[in-house]
Amino acid sequence: MIVKHYTEVSNQAVEVEGAVAVKKRVLIGEKDGAPNFVMRQFTLEAGGKTPFHTHNWEHEVYVLSGTGIARHSDGQSHISAGCAVLVLPNEEHGFVNTGNEPLVFLCSIPKL
Amino acid sequence: MIVKHYTEVSNQAVEVEGAVAVKKRVLIGEKDGAPNFVMRQFTLEAGGKTPFHTHNWEHEVYVLSGTGIARHSDGQSHISAGCAVLVLPNEEHGFVNTGNEPLVFLCSIPKL
Repeated sequence: MIVKHYTEVSNQAVEVEGAVAVKKRVLIGEKDGAPNFVMRQFTLEAGGKTPFHTHNWEHEVYVLSGTGIARHSDGQSHISAGCAVLVLPNEEHGFVNTGNEPLVFLCSIPKL
Repeated sequence: MIVKHYTEVSNQAVEVEGAVAVKKRVLIGEKDGAPNFVMRQFTLEAGGKTPFHTHNWEHEVYVLSGTGIARHSDGQSHISAGCAVLVLPNEEHGFVNTGNEPLVFLCSIPKL
């Protein structure tokens, strides 16, 4: 069993095209021996966003704090603490912090 | 994309042997079309615990609120909000609420 507090995990800037003020912690990953999926924690500072993009794997998201929107091909949905979001493979999506506090969420993906 | 708040999902008593004051919400599951893994949210009331048990699939846990312990074959680890826990397949484990407030955590598992 591995137990760690998120503050023990380094918070690294996400430097992909279209990402603004995004950091990522890999809380449970391949290095820990996770067999099937990976749990990451994202922090979007006020004004931050992830790129509107698509890929052939899913996201399972849980919002920990802050407020924002989840963009999708049909529009957008408001998200706040306690929201769960399923992004299916090949669905366009992006997350935007629309509040004044950091938007923090977990985002799990299958091991690629 | 599916977006839901956890309060929209029914919180069902877990009635397996050794479980005390445990409820479970399936936040993202097979019914939602999740391809690979399932996100559940557990609430252990004060005095609550999950059975000390084992199975051949992993858990990826994130503690949302409350305090408790994660029991394992070598002893126990304290857990509180912000802790991530990886339980590997076939590892003995159990969760106990040792505080006065509900212990609430996410627990994702592979689709079985």
